[in-house]
Amino acid sequence: MAEPDFEKAELLPVIAQDADNGDVLMLAYMNQEAWQETLKTGRVCYFSRSRNKLWRKGEESGNFQEVKEIYFDCDADTILVKINQVGGAACHVGYRSCFYRQIDPATGEVTVKGERIFDPDDVYKK
Amino acid sequence: MAEPDFEKAELLPVIAQDADNGDVLMLAYMNQEAWQETLKTGRVCYFSRSRNKLWRKGEESGNFQEVKEIYFDCDADTILVKINQVGGAACHVGYRSCFYRQIDPATGEVTVKGERIFDPDDVYKK
Repeated sequence: MAEPDFEKAELLPVIAQDADNGDVLMLAYMNQEAWQETLKTGRVCYFSRSRNKLWRKGEESGNFQEVKEIYFDCDADTILVKINQVGGAACHVGYRSCFYRQIDPATGEVTVKGERIFDPDDVYKK
Repeated sequence: MAEPDFEKAELLPVIAQDADNGDVLMLAYMNQEAWQETLKTGRVCYFSRSRNKLWRKGEESGNFQEVKEIYFDCDADTILVKINQVGGAACHVGYRSCFYRQIDPATGEVTVKGERIFDPDDVYKK
């Protein structure tokens, strides 16, 4: 199998990882069309499950994701993109990574680990 | 929201990342029960979609995943575990990472990037 298999599922999960420092920035989904567009343009395009349409990451915020490398997994049902995150923040609430909350397994206590890069109110005009 | 939200979906995707070098090793799923067991035991427990039951990673191969840190994302519907991969290989076909295949966006050519740590025939008795 020489590429992700969209026959297994219409939407495949995509992990976006910072190409420079290896931080996992976010997880979202692609359909076949988003996948093709990503390959063609070199900018990551997802499929938004909530809006039910193609989601050209950064089209509103300007925080595009430039593709550096693309991998897929043994089962051909998950994609890993190594990217350059323009603007420094992948998360819609303004953190570099969506995974900015750490949970202590023993206590359940949550600690915010990430730094806030932008204020979403300034970026997304409601 | 102070923990992953299993009301959003019965199964949430989980990214396993090498705690030492940041490599993304695999993506699998947890249900509430797998999540609770992971917190309690300090070893990653997934829910296998193909076998439809809890999947104590390493129970067959001995390649356990020891939890170092746990994060969850802004939408509380994806989990990131930073782990120590016992045995060195997370992938059932014997690679360190399941993401051992890189695809060239321009040509579609696939290159194997990972090193094979074990031969699955030696590890999984059929």
